[in-house]
Amino acid sequence: MKLTLFFNNLKNSKIFNSIVVVSILITAIIDGAQTYSLPKSTFELLKTIDTAIIYWFVLEIVIRIFSFDDKSGFFRNPWNILDFIIILFCILPVTAIDNLLLFRLIRVFRVLRLLVIIPKLRVLFSSLTKSIPQLSYVGVMMFIIFYVFSAFGSHYFGRINEELWGNIGISMLTLFRVMTFEDWTDVMYEVMEVYSIGWLYFIVFIFLTAFAFLNMVIAILSNGLSEESNPNTEQDLTLIKDKLDGISKILDDMQK
Amino acid sequence: MKLTLFFNNLKNSKIFNSIVVVSILITAIIDGAQTYSLPKSTFELLKTIDTAIIYWFVLEIVIRIFSFDDKSGFFRNPWNILDFIIILFCILPVTAIDNLLLFRLIRVFRVLRLLVIIPKLRVLFSSLTKSIPQLSYVGVMMFIIFYVFSAFGSHYFGRINEELWGNIGISMLTLFRVMTFEDWTDVMYEVMEVYSIGWLYFIVFIFLTAFAFLNMVIAILSNGLSEESNPNTEQDLTLIKDKLDGISKILDDMQK
Amino acid sequence: MKLTLFFNNLKNSKIFNSIVVVSILITAIIDGAQTYSLPKSTFELLKTIDTAIIYWFVLEIVIRIFSFDDKSGFFRNPWNILDFIIILFCILPVTAIDNLLLFRLIRVFRVLRLLVIIPKLRVLFSSLTKSIPQLSYVGVMMFIIFYVFSAFGSHYFGRINEELWGNIGISMLTLFRVMTFEDWTDVMYEVMEVYSIGWLYFIVFIFLTAFAFLNMVIAILSNGLSEESNPNTEQDLTLIKDKLDGISKILDDMQK
Amino acid sequence: MKLTLFFNNLKNSKIFNSIVVVSILITAIIDGAQTYSLPKSTFELLKTIDTAIIYWFVLEIVIRIFSFDDKSGFFRNPWNILDFIIILFCILPVTAIDNLLLFRLIRVFRVLRLLVIIPKLRVLFSSLTKSIPQLSYVGVMMFIIFYVFSAFGSHYFGRINEELWGNIGISMLTLFRVMTFEDWTDVMYEVMEVYSIGWLYFIVFIFLTAFAFLNMVIAILSNGLSEESNPNTEQDLTLIKDKLDGISKILDDMQK
Repeated sequence: MKLTLFFNNLKNSKIFNSIVVVSILITAIIDGAQTYSLPKSTFELLKTIDTAIIYWFVLEIVIRIFSFDDKSGFFRNPWNILDFIIILFCILPVTAIDNLLLFRLIRVFRVLRLLVIIPKLRVLFSSLTKSIPQLSYVGVMMFIIFYVFSAFGSHYFGRINEELWGNIGISMLTLFRVMTFEDWTDVMYEVMEVYSIGWLYFIVFIFLTAFAFLNMVIAILSNGLSEESNPNTEQDLTLIKDKLDGISKILDDMQK
Repeated sequence: MKLTLFFNNLKNSKIFNSIVVVSILITAIIDGAQTYSLPKSTFELLKTIDTAIIYWFVLEIVIRIFSFDDKSGFFRNPWNILDFIIILFCILPVTAIDNLLLFRLIRVFRVLRLLVIIPKLRVLFSSLTKSIPQLSYVGVMMFIIFYVFSAFGSHYFGRINEELWGNIGISMLTLFRVMTFEDWTDVMYEVMEVYSIGWLYFIVFIFLTAFAFLNMVIAILSNGLSEESNPNTEQDLTLIKDKLDGISKILDDMQK
Repeated sequence: MKLTLFFNNLKNSKIFNSIVVVSILITAIIDGAQTYSLPKSTFELLKTIDTAIIYWFVLEIVIRIFSFDDKSGFFRNPWNILDFIIILFCILPVTAIDNLLLFRLIRVFRVLRLLVIIPKLRVLFSSLTKSIPQLSYVGVMMFIIFYVFSAFGSHYFGRINEELWGNIGISMLTLFRVMTFEDWTDVMYEVMEVYSIGWLYFIVFIFLTAFAFLNMVIAILSNGLSEESNPNTEQDLTLIKDKLDGISKILDDMQK
Repeated sequence: MKLTLFFNNLKNSKIFNSIVVVSILITAIIDGAQTYSLPKSTFELLKTIDTAIIYWFVLEIVIRIFSFDDKSGFFRNPWNILDFIIILFCILPVTAIDNLLLFRLIRVFRVLRLLVIIPKLRVLFSSLTKSIPQLSYVGVMMFIIFYVFSAFGSHYFGRINEELWGNIGISMLTLFRVMTFEDWTDVMYEVMEVYSIGWLYFIVFIFLTAFAFLNMVIAILSNGLSEESNPNTEQDLTLIKDKLDGISKILDDMQK
């Protein structure tokens, strides 16, 4: 029981968490360094450090599991499960995954442990998640705009440039490109050589998507800002109303 | 009368609406799939499904019409009229419209039915519509900026590049391109070879339009945010004032 | 005196203002049409309409001047003076300005009369003007960033590409281009061939300007939004405080 | 003592500060002018003015130091120390720094004195600084996104284009380019020739970074806007509550 308390204090200490964050960043740097061409000795050194850090990660997660009175408490938090899976993949021997490239890529996800370790990031992440329902409706609207325009585009402009308007999928990609203003005039001038009114299609599309995009920004913004807005005011007003009711009652009593 | 009630319950049920939304998405996918080159058998299959869904749409709209006590009530909502017209076009035989391309494009608009079926989208749409009056004034301002600059551009730069500054219409399109920052330096460097002060024209234009654009964003944003802002506060304050008036009256009575 | 009143009513009538707005738009269209190659007969027709509208503008401004009891009252509004000057330039004979191109360009500014005629546009314009003081400080900050980076750029990168970094003026233009993300990687890759650390210069510059730009947006936004924010709340609160003071006074009287 | 007071008044006078600001701008213009090829006589003239202004700067900082009763008071403000160091570097003889280019670059930083002299700019600067803690978390999130995607990119796309995806560092630069929408389709089309599903990588990356970027904007915006929001309301509400408590007490006394 004493050990649990000790582990719990350790887990919540600033130093412990800082060391974990630094370890994660070191593994990230090592992973990154391996994409450069390095002398073999350096490469071996990095590998040794990497292995050491993995052992440290295992130790760390054991500490965090044993910091719970009820050991299964650790697994009740979905973030911890994610963390557990990431470390599990790290200690798998290379031979378990026959594809070396895949093996190295899985290790890259160790950087996701930052999300698990730094609580503020999880808050940020969940605040983003909260705006998703509102965004999904804007998403449907965007889809309708994209769909109608790309169907139109692939029907009429397909013969002009097969690579940009060949089918409805490619057309959507082309329209996404137009929305990001990436060389959109090249696409437009090409169309305008055949249909001189072609600019109308692009201008209308840009305005509609900009409009819908603005709406999305508002959806996120108003979500983000309203949280900051004065909840105190509301509380104060309720308090004031209660006090007034109290005064009214007293006065009523006095009149009788 | 019992049927009307049954149809009404059906119309408002979640399952019914979900099926309709899925049907619309399936027709959208089928329309999209036809722009790819498919084996004939798949093509025939898609066509059969498409026809089945159109019959289902007809049934669905009949249910929705008959869910009203007064049958003409359905047509009092402009969104329903739009819906009715879209389905009407779908059941028209191909031969009624001799242009096959046009026939296929009309079908694309079936996806607009999503706007009619999902109420949240209509709310979103109407909130966009509300900001239009404010936007129209920004639009006029934008027009003035574009008009003066394109008149200037077509007069002075027309000889430099006929394709970009040939007349006031093309100049406006070129300026729109400059506003989206799409290869705007190419346009500027070309002008600067003749008029070395040409950069001033572009910088001033970019700043003016960015300014006007920001104003447009504020117009939409403040519209979007103010709706979210505390209507409760206003109600609470009115309530508090009323209560105070009540107390004052009692006190006046007591003094007499 | 009766005429003054009649003119004043006329000036404020919706029909009168609508006709003026339409007239201005017609002159704008005519000015624009002249940049296209037209048959001579059409050209002559447009010219006649144009002349007629100028006479109508003179008549209109006379009506607006005579709608004031004190004739000089008209000139007390700076917008009216602008209006007067624009019309004055329009009735100048072509021969007065020996440069035909200049003559035609001055006419383009007739579209600015929209700013004078539509009050809402003037409000919009003045709301933009109000945010200028705040913006000017951000402007100074932007200047400092641009100045330091372009001095640095012209000193170190001048030998790499004379046309982009030749002197401090051109460097500033190049940096403005980088800020708009217009082919900025081309500029960077060129620099990186000589100084491999060159990407740092560009990334830091982009982050700094994006930061300063965001600040500018906030300056305008908070200006725009705070105006919308609840002035009623303030009034209500003052009213409530006054009422409470009244009640306190009555209670004090009763206690004595 | 009288001199200290006189210097203090001088230091705070509008004329004194305006002259300093103008002097700084003149040195900036002179620094800029030297990057153009000028006739020798003009060059000499500029040099003389530059030297004169440096003497003036020394005089000015002496005045500002002696405006403090306690001379070391001047150095308690970090901005003043920055100012002091800048001027110190300016009066260093050229020979002290053997690199002429470096010598000239240091002079460029004289423009930073504007930050020290204009108090409003310092306020702006510190308001930016305040949003840094919030931004740093978004920065970590951005890093995670960039890291995972560039590791993925360098592993899979490295063979396609060594210059864009050669190692994790270059991949990050390429992804930053994609985030600014600068010729991002060229990068994508190149990848799609090998992996036809490549568009998914880019679309997901763009959406994720746009999402995280939006969050950053909100972080700054809400910081900037919340400061503007009504602190009066809070004060008023507290005042109203206090008054209500007073009334309740009186009423309680009366009832007894």
